Amino acid sequence: MSESLRDKVAVIGVGCTKFGDNFDASYEDMVVEAAFAAMADAGVEPERIEAAWLGSYSPYGGNGKASVSLADAIRLYDRPITRVENYCATGTDAFRNAAMAVAAGACDVALVVGAEKLKDRPVRGLARDAAHPYKGDGLTAPGMMAMAANRYFHRFSIGRETLAKVAVKNHHNGSLNPKAHFRMEVTEEQVLKAPIIAWPYGLLDCCPTTDGAAAAVICRAGMAHEFRQDPVLVRGLGLAVKTGRPWYDPCDDHVGFPATGEAARAAYRMAGIANPVGEIDLAEVHDCFTWPEITHYEDLGFCPKGAGAAFIAEGRSALTGDLPVNPSGGLKSFGHPIGATGVRMIYEIVTQLRGEAGPRQVRGAATGLVHNLGGPGAVACVVILSRN
Amino acid sequence: MSESLRDKVAVIGVGCTKFGDNFDASYEDMVVEAAFAAMADAGVEPERIEAAWLGSYSPYGGNGKASVSLADAIRLYDRPITRVENYCATGTDAFRNAAMAVAAGACDVALVVGAEKLKDRPVRGLARDAAHPYKGDGLTAPGMMAMAANRYFHRFSIGRETLAKVAVKNHHNGSLNPKAHFRMEVTEEQVLKAPIIAWPYGLLDCCPTTDGAAAAVICRAGMAHEFRQDPVLVRGLGLAVKTGRPWYDPCDDHVGFPATGEAARAAYRMAGIANPVGEIDLAEVHDCFTWPEITHYEDLGFCPKGAGAAFIAEGRSALTGDLPVNPSGGLKSFGHPIGATGVRMIYEIVTQLRGEAGPRQVRGAATGLVHNLGGPGAVACVVILSRN
Repeated sequence: MSESLRDKVAVIGVGCTKFGDNFDASYEDMVVEAAFAAMADAGVEPERIEAAWLGSYSPYGGNGKASVSLADAIRLYDRPITRVENYCATGTDAFRNAAMAVAAGACDVALVVGAEKLKDRPVRGLARDAAHPYKGDGLTAPGMMAMAANRYFHRFSIGRETLAKVAVKNHHNGSLNPKAHFRMEVTEEQVLKAPIIAWPYGLLDCCPTTDGAAAAVICRAGMAHEFRQDPVLVRGLGLAVKTGRPWYDPCDDHVGFPATGEAARAAYRMAGIANPVGEIDLAEVHDCFTWPEITHYEDLGFCPKGAGAAFIAEGRSALTGDLPVNPSGGLKSFGHPIGATGVRMIYEIVTQLRGEAGPRQVRGAATGLVHNLGGPGAVACVVILSRN
Repeated sequence: MSESLRDKVAVIGVGCTKFGDNFDASYEDMVVEAAFAAMADAGVEPERIEAAWLGSYSPYGGNGKASVSLADAIRLYDRPITRVENYCATGTDAFRNAAMAVAAGACDVALVVGAEKLKDRPVRGLARDAAHPYKGDGLTAPGMMAMAANRYFHRFSIGRETLAKVAVKNHHNGSLNPKAHFRMEVTEEQVLKAPIIAWPYGLLDCCPTTDGAAAAVICRAGMAHEFRQDPVLVRGLGLAVKTGRPWYDPCDDHVGFPATGEAARAAYRMAGIANPVGEIDLAEVHDCFTWPEITHYEDLGFCPKGAGAAFIAEGRSALTGDLPVNPSGGLKSFGHPIGATGVRMIYEIVTQLRGEAGPRQVRGAATGLVHNLGGPGAVACVVILSRN
């Protein structure tokens, strides 16, 4: 990703539904709420939207939808709408493609929507479906993320107590967030005593199954001040894809997700960031389970490999730490409607950079990082946003 | 789509598998064949590919795949790969997003692959699945395209004889094309006497169910001559989305696909084309059934609404006509592996513009148009390519 894209695109509006068991809202209801909230936030009339990108993972099971579902929900006709899918990194990759189109001059103002309705019917291919490409190997999402954690435990001699600290922190942050799926605090003892799902993960180590939608309005940076005084600039973008069957990869040391490192390096290069510590003020990372957050600290360069346990034990990733991670509550507490998650992370970072995050506000937030992971850790997308 | 994108991106390599009942080739085999053919055609080593886009419609039924399937098939790791889905316009929209990324300066050299394996198992959601969003209305692909044809017949007083001319023309062209699924000529009598599938469509009015993959390598236009002397420039791009349930749309006169008109206008505007007749030398259009080709002539501006029957009767769209349409044989004869089709159309136009189309060569081809339609006519993508 070339440096020539740096700061060419601005986020001028964000919107997000309450995440949770939204049985009273359809997929379309959530898309409407998030999209119109983002347009209102940007001060942009629907007519100004020249193109849109939809991030939705599972369209035909009824859990997500194709491009026409966005057109019909918000009556956005006669314009380009692309649906992007990239496993659980769907939302950020939709944002990335939209940002590149704006940077290319293909459109001045674009809408990005991420949406997924997971609660109405079973999700094909996530935790249950043996016909899914990598479920054929017997690996459900909890199963494969558990294997990776066990290997890390063996290598770095940590235990479930470290994972529990992630759950405690992210539930605390989520308890401060009115849009989070789960708003209850949990204790380390509760996390450790919860029923085991796939060792070392207990129930409270796993993100929930959630409905939700989020949206962002972006524009050419040069015109952002037409819309608002505090646009947020897209400073870095990185996406990297690795093998879809990492457990067969003899070159992988299996103590993290190499795709994250590649995506982060690309994003840092574009952003001109030499060392994220000191230059990144806060991050939203993909804590689909508790252990991944530990390795993300390392793979994103917040601390050396193997030092993630100390990073959280010392409180560095807490709301009051020097590099708060998942101030929103993360996937763990905010929830994880697949295609929505990446856009929801952008919603959180933009809200924080504007100083509008209320009781979960990170002080002095000027540059924030979004990290979205997909598949068996095979896909990672990193977005870096800065106050103008 | 801004004019600022015109001629900024070049196609420097194309590749395509034989389309057909490829029972001896897996999805991955086809991706490998098409992708490496395109790279060899461009004179580009795999290391030069900085990013990729995959167009595949139906990943989890085993008919198509996610971004990692491209990474694993051709060992393209550590780089961005986005999967795009946009109904049957998936392939062209993948190309469009790739072209915008190159125009933005996000990468210099990119790969686009479209692939689908339709013959190994039933295709969810196409012709059989009542749980599909618009199949819930009882409308299969043949059914809804037949309803549209019947309305057109009523309005413009044409009959099945006109449709047969499309089948005869496209089977003739396909008979000249070694990569086409069907290489046999058909007569008007054969077409008219074939078993009815959904009135007015008989078996020979319908495109087949086909396996195939196609690929293109694109780069910044400014560097295209590093790779070859005859790059083809991306002159126009247009995508438009309409309602996913057009039969409920009271503003639609139901004698064509309004999305095609919108996408074409956007592409002509970007390309600086005032009148396609005289400025477009040949076209590949989305003849999933015979009647759609008739309305595409009109919706693309090749002739006035209602004049499509005369356009083909006068031989204007024949290989020897003034605006040859589907010289490849079209979906009708070449086949329609969903995500592959749009990229295969680009393969055909590039081959024609280089003068390498052999017995099906259109003489004096300098500017060609690709038109890809998706869903119930709700999505249309138009790409205009020109000799440098």
